[in-house]
This record gives sequence, structure tokens and C-alpha cells, in this order.
Amino acid sequence: LPITRAELKKVKALHTRKGRRSQGRFVAEGVRLLEEAYRFGINPAPLYYSPDRLSPRAETLLGRFRARKTALERVSPGDLSRLASAETSQGLLAVCPTPTTALTELHRPAMRNILLCENLSDPGNVGTLIRSALAFGFDLVILCGRCAEPFSPKVVRSSVGAVFGLPIAVAATDEALGLTDRSGIVVVATDLAARTDLGQLLPSLEKRRLALAIGSEADGLSQTVLERARSRVRIRHSGKVESLNSAMAGSILMQACYDSRIRRKT
Amino acid sequence: LPITRAELKKVKALHTRKGRRSQGRFVAEGVRLLEEAYRFGINPAPLYYSPDRLSPRAETLLGRFRARKTALERVSPGDLSRLASAETSQGLLAVCPTPTTALTELHRPAMRNILLCENLSDPGNVGTLIRSALAFGFDLVILCGRCAEPFSPKVVRSSVGAVFGLPIAVAATDEALGLTDRSGIVVVATDLAARTDLGQLLPSLEKRRLALAIGSEADGLSQTVLERARSRVRIRHSGKVESLNSAMAGSILMQACYDSRIRRKT
Repeated sequence: LPITRAELKKVKALHTRKGRRSQGRFVAEGVRLLEEAYRFGINPAPLYYSPDRLSPRAETLLGRFRARKTALERVSPGDLSRLASAETSQGLLAVCPTPTTALTELHRPAMRNILLCENLSDPGNVGTLIRSALAFGFDLVILCGRCAEPFSPKVVRSSVGAVFGLPIAVAATDEALGLTDRSGIVVVATDLAARTDLGQLLPSLEKRRLALAIGSEADGLSQTVLERARSRVRIRHSGKVESLNSAMAGSILMQACYDSRIRRKT
Repeated sequence: LPITRAELKKVKALHTRKGRRSQGRFVAEGVRLLEEAYRFGINPAPLYYSPDRLSPRAETLLGRFRARKTALERVSPGDLSRLASAETSQGLLAVCPTPTTALTELHRPAMRNILLCENLSDPGNVGTLIRSALAFGFDLVILCGRCAEPFSPKVVRSSVGAVFGLPIAVAATDEALGLTDRSGIVVVATDLAARTDLGQLLPSLEKRRLALAIGSEADGLSQTVLERARSRVRIRHSGKVESLNSAMAGSILMQACYDSRIRRKT
């Protein structure tokens, strides 16, 4: 059945921040992303598909969603292109409810490792950090200041579906630091000028809940975060570069946390 | 002076692979990239600039290039936009000779740590890996198979100028492995199925020259590389993701090499 003009307009509005906000939904496209959505129990409403474009892998996935009673809507290739933001829909486009995570999730003792991003405006970096956070056993991501929006198409895409796998809260920096304080969470800030490696610090934090703060590449973390952090850490590198990409820096530090936790267990 | 139509056409051809190849030149735009070019002693020929658009930081840089007798060409804002590939030229656009690095550089004993990338088609990942290679003291990058082209605008941009800071060779996989063999370089391959962490392996490689091989996210390294590698290493991560972004994986491993070298020295 051809999609109605009203429906097309509504879905296309989800390519904008305003549309996502007012509808409380976002779009995810392509086989790999939607396999992750399936794996994390997400139920699109609806999942648009165009049969002529589906690979065998996409067919299999569609069958799984069907078995789970997901609302499927068959559309023409032309209509699917009109709905899509990228040329990578591979015949599948899902409209998903935007998960909302309250900052008060911080208070839950199960939230042991938290990634706190400040002013990370590049969506590719934010998506990649969310992916690494999930990979290295982090329990919560908090986006403060002027960060890219977590459910924008570019962030969703560069997270390779990790946005479906862990809670992500958006908050003001002050508010986030207030809550970490009250929860007894240790804030560790990355700082080019620091004299300590995270590895030296980790043994002393063994039993503490940790928020690792990553700032923007151009300006680093704000004074607010730096002053209220319990410790500042660096990643040593050669003098041939000024700094590391912030997604690299964050991933390297999260990997160090994960590794130290694994070593303790074994 | 207005730029001639022939010159415009020639510079615009550098936005294509074919044009870069036939002219042996590439384009770098924006203040941050060109500060790095300056720092690494690159001499653009020419450096186009548009005075109305320059920030004080860009003015300073222009003055430095002028003092170095770089060929400067003043153009109108309109002409600069016509030359530019991105909207980020910030009034400065340099045409640079493409550095060429022979694979035989491998034979030089000074090339202790080598990054070997195979089939990394994403230019953002290739640029980021080149940046991390420079940051973590790697001496040479080799791009094998279907990798993004090292001097394409996206790679140059995401390397944040690191392409100016270390030699990059493009080669066939077989050829690269033949030369690492003959040079006694130990090839260490990343492999999701490996049972060894790089950290466990590094002490035994202390005095050896090392080529760290990173493959594509979708398919990993080719059988050719996996079979000829002396060791295979993994990065442990939670089962919640299938794999890591290849730039993250490569950066984490290069950081481990750097860190172990620093520890030995201190």
C-alpha cells in the first residue's frame, strides 16, 4: 500500500531534532543496526520494509521481528527512499520510541562505571564512545553541555546499535556533578596537563563507583568538571601530536577500567 | 588577482582520486591542518588565502609560511570557495606535493613499530589510525588491500594533520608480508578468536621490530595475514557488542605498545 502523505511527513520530521523531540521517536536504518535493535529487545513501531531490496540476511531479520509481532509495513522502494535519511537503508527502516533515562539512575548501585561526556559535538565521536562504553562494561552514559544528540541518525549509525544496549541520559553538567557527589561516585577527569596515568589510580578505586569524564578535543573539560573531579588522568603520547581524538582517549581509558576489573576477577 | 579557469580546474581535480594521482598533489584546508603542515616542514605550492576570512590565528600562520618563502596566492572569497572541498577552509587552502613512501622503508632498522592496515575502507577510521600511530610512536603506516586513500580530503581531515608527520606506504598485502618476513619483523594480527592479550605478548617482543595488523570491522584480517602472522591477539570486551570499531581497536593496541616501551625506559 502506498504510504500516506501525512505519514511520510511525520517520519521525515524525525530526521530533525525538533521532530524527534516532539514525537519522542527516532529512525534506525539498515540490517546491522536493526539486528542490534532486535537483539536488545527493541520493538519498532512500525518497521518499514521494501521486499525487492532485502538481502537474505535482511529477510531473516524481518522474519524474527514478524515472529515477535512487530508492526511491519510494506512499502515501495520509492517510498522507502523517501523515508530514509541515508542511502544505507538496505530495504529496512524502523521508527523506534526514544528511550529516556533519568539522571537519577545514577543513584542505583548497579551503575558502577559511568561515562560522562562534556561538549562532544561530533556525532561520530559520541556514537563511537557509546559503542566502546557498551563494549567495556560501562553501565550508563551521561551527555552534558553541548553534546551531539544521542538519537540523531549519525550518532545511532556510528554507535552501530549500541544506543539500544545501555541507558543514555542527557543533563546539565552541574546537575550531573551534583548527583555524582550525592551518590559517592568518584569523578575522574581526563586532562592533558595531568601527571597521573589511569592505571596508577585504578587500584585505589577498586571498590568505588566511577564516572570517567571526557571533554572536547579543542577545549578539554570545563573548569567546573576539572575542579570537582577527585582525580585527573592523562594518556601519555609522543610530542608529535597535540592531543588524541576524544573517542580514542575515552575508549583507551574505558578499556583500562575493563581490563583492571577482569584481572581482579581472575 | 582572479584565479584563471585553468588553475581552478586543476585544483578542483585534486578532489578526485584520479586528479590526485595524475598531478601527484593533494589539498589540505583549514587552520588546524595547516598548522600541522607547517610544524612538519611541509611547503605548499601554492598556499591560497583569502584575507577577509582570516582569523588572527590564521593570520599568524600565514605570516610564518610567508617567512618560510612559501608561494602564497591571494584569492577572492568566492574563488576560495570554488577551490575548497569543504566549508571549513577558514580562508586557507594549501596544495601540497603527495609524499610517497616506498615499502622498502621497512628495511630500515629505525622502523621499529609499524601499523599495517588491511581493507579499511572508511576514511575516518584510516585518518584516526594514522593520528594514533603518530601519537603512540609508530614509525610507519602501511595500507594494504582496499584501504581508503591516505591523501583524500576525508583521511587528511580526520588525521588532523598526522598524515604530514609520518611515512605512509600503500602496498599489496603479499608484498608487504614478503618484506616484513625478510626484515625479520614480527607480524602481530588482531583476531576476535585469539586467546592472547597483547599485554601478555609484549614482554617477549621487547627487542623485536613489530608490525601490528588491523583488519576491517566486517571481515577482520584476510586469511593471508592471519596465517603468516607470528601471533594473534584480541582485545577483551563484553559480550554485549560483537566487535570494536577498528580505529578504536588499533588505537588501544598501539597505546599498549607505547605504554610498555615507556615503562621499560623508566
